[in-house]
Amino acid sequence: MSTRESLAAEREQAVTDEVLASFDNAEPRLREVMQSLVRHLHAFARETRLSEREWEAGIAFLTRAGRLTDDRRQEFILLSDVLGLSMLTVAINQPAEPGATEATVFGPFFHDEAPEIALGGDIARGAAGMPCYVSGQVRGTGGEPIAGARIDVWEADEDGFYDVQYDDHRSAGRAWLRTGPDGEYRFWSVLPAPYPIPHDGPVGDLLKAAGRGPMRPAHLHFMVTAPGYRRLITHIFLAGDPHLRDDAVFGVKDSLIVDATTHAGGLAPDGTEPAAPWASIAFDLVLAPAPARP
Amino acid sequence: MSTRESLAAEREQAVTDEVLASFDNAEPRLREVMQSLVRHLHAFARETRLSEREWEAGIAFLTRAGRLTDDRRQEFILLSDVLGLSMLTVAINQPAEPGATEATVFGPFFHDEAPEIALGGDIARGAAGMPCYVSGQVRGTGGEPIAGARIDVWEADEDGFYDVQYDDHRSAGRAWLRTGPDGEYRFWSVLPAPYPIPHDGPVGDLLKAAGRGPMRPAHLHFMVTAPGYRRLITHIFLAGDPHLRDDAVFGVKDSLIVDATTHAGGLAPDGTEPAAPWASIAFDLVLAPAPARP
Ligand SMILES: [Fe+2]
Ligand SMILES: [Fe+2]
Repeated sequence: MSTRESLAAEREQAVTDEVLASFDNAEPRLREVMQSLVRHLHAFARETRLSEREWEAGIAFLTRAGRLTDDRRQEFILLSDVLGLSMLTVAINQPAEPGATEATVFGPFFHDEAPEIALGGDIARGAAGMPCYVSGQVRGTGGEPIAGARIDVWEADEDGFYDVQYDDHRSAGRAWLRTGPDGEYRFWSVLPAPYPIPHDGPVGDLLKAAGRGPMRPAHLHFMVTAPGYRRLITHIFLAGDPHLRDDAVFGVKDSLIVDATTHAGGLAPDGTEPAAPWASIAFDLVLAPAPARP
Repeated sequence: MSTRESLAAEREQAVTDEVLASFDNAEPRLREVMQSLVRHLHAFARETRLSEREWEAGIAFLTRAGRLTDDRRQEFILLSDVLGLSMLTVAINQPAEPGATEATVFGPFFHDEAPEIALGGDIARGAAGMPCYVSGQVRGTGGEPIAGARIDVWEADEDGFYDVQYDDHRSAGRAWLRTGPDGEYRFWSVLPAPYPIPHDGPVGDLLKAAGRGPMRPAHLHFMVTAPGYRRLITHIFLAGDPHLRDDAVFGVKDSLIVDATTHAGGLAPDGTEPAAPWASIAFDLVLAPAPARP
C-alpha cells in the first residue's frame, strides 16, 4: 500500500469509527443493529469504491421508489424481495422445526380488509380463472389437528393480477376462513397464473439492467394463525410452472410445489358440479409451536 | 454448531448464493456493485438475526421517508448523512491531492435555481443575520489562480433555516458568482447559525432513539467548478461553534474551520460601511486537477 493509499484508508476508517461511536449510547438491540448496518454499509461503499454518481443514483432510486409507494404499491418490499432480503429474513426466523410447513415471502399484495368466508366457500369472489378446489388439514408438528385456525388466502387471477392492481377498487381472489373441528379446510379459488412483479418502477429497471426477469411462478398465498402456534406465511406453487427455477423473489421451496389435478367435468368433493374443466389441490399445513416467551 | 444450527446456516447461505448468482449476467460494474451490496446486506441480516418485526420496521421507515421526500425535503439524503455514508462517499472520492481544500457533504439544501451575483455582491438577498464579508482566492494545487471559476454558495440564516424550509417560496441565502482575473472572490452573506437537520421524520426518530442530537455546527456551503479542475463541494465552519464535535452528519474537518472576525463598525474591505456589527471571513479554495479521462 502506498502512503497515499494508506492515508486514504485511514481517512475512511476514521469516518466509520466516528459513526459507529455515535450509536454507543443507544439501547443494546438498537446499538447492535445500527452498528452492524453501518459496518456493512460502509464496507460495501469502500469495497466497491462507490462513486459520487453511483451514490446519487442510489438516492434517486430510493426517491423514485418512495414516490411510487402507496396503499396499493409497495416498491420497498419489492426491492427487499428482489435482493433476497425478504427470503433471507424468512429463513433466519423460520423455526428449525422438523415437519413444519416451510415459510416463504409475504409479498406486497396482502391487505387486511378481506372478508371472511364459510368453510367450503369461494375466495375467488369473481376473480377470473379455472375453478380450483383447495383442501387439506391444519395440524401441529405433533400431528394434532388445529380446529378454528384462521387461514388467510390471496391470489392472482388467470391474467396474473391481484385485485389491488386493478383501478376499479374491486375485492377478489382473497378471503379468510377457519378450520373445522378436525383442522380441516376447503375452499374454492381459481387456478392462479404466473405473473411479473410490478416492473414499471425502479425495481423493474434494476432487474432489466441486471438481465433478470420479473416473473414469479403461479402460487396461492397462505397466512395461518392459531393460538399457541407460530404464524405461518407461505405459498403453494403449481408443479410444472415454467418459472419455478427463476422466481424473481427467490421464494420457491421444493416442499411447497403441489400438483393441481385438472378434471374434465363431474362432481367436486363437496358434491357441487363446477363449470368444467376444474382443478383440485390437496395440501396440509403444519404449524410449529409458538416460541416460548422470554 | 448443532445440527439444527448448521442446517439453518446452510439454508441461509443457499438464499444468498441464489441471489448472488442472479446478478452474474449483469454488466461488470453493476454486477460488482450489486453482488457486494447483496453480500453485505445479507451478512447484516444474518449477523443481527434480523427479526421479521425489525424487517417490517425497516420497510415502514423507508416508506415514511419516501412519503416525506419531495422537491424541498430529501429524507433519503438525510438518512445517508446520519449513517455517515455521505461523508464516507466523499472520503472515498476525494483525491489524495496534497494541498487541495478538503471536501465535505453536499447536504439536502442545494438547488440549482439560485441567481448569479456580481463579484462583491450579496448572496444573503434578504436572509436575516449579521452581515458577513467572505473573501479569498480560488487556485490550483500548483498555486495558479483560477479566473472565471464558478462558486455556488448557500447557507442557513441566523435562525438556522434555509430559504427552502420556509413556506413562502422565498429565495435567499444562496447565489453564484465567478472569480476575478486573479482567482479572487468576495461576497456579502450573513453569519450562519447552527441548525438541526430536519428531525420531524423517521431520521429524526432514529437519532432520538439512538440518543443522538440533530444539530449541525454553523457553516457556509460552497461548490466550486472550473474547467480542468475537479469539482469541490465543501463547507466552511465557524471556529468556536458548540457543535463542531457532534455534527449530526459527520461533516467537520479541522482544515475547514475558520475564524469569523466581528467588527464593531468601520469600513469593510470593499469600501462600504455595513450595519454594525459585521463579520469577515477569509478562506482560500484550492482545487485538485480534474481526473484524467480513462
Ligand atoms: Fe404473489
Ligand atoms: Fe447546511
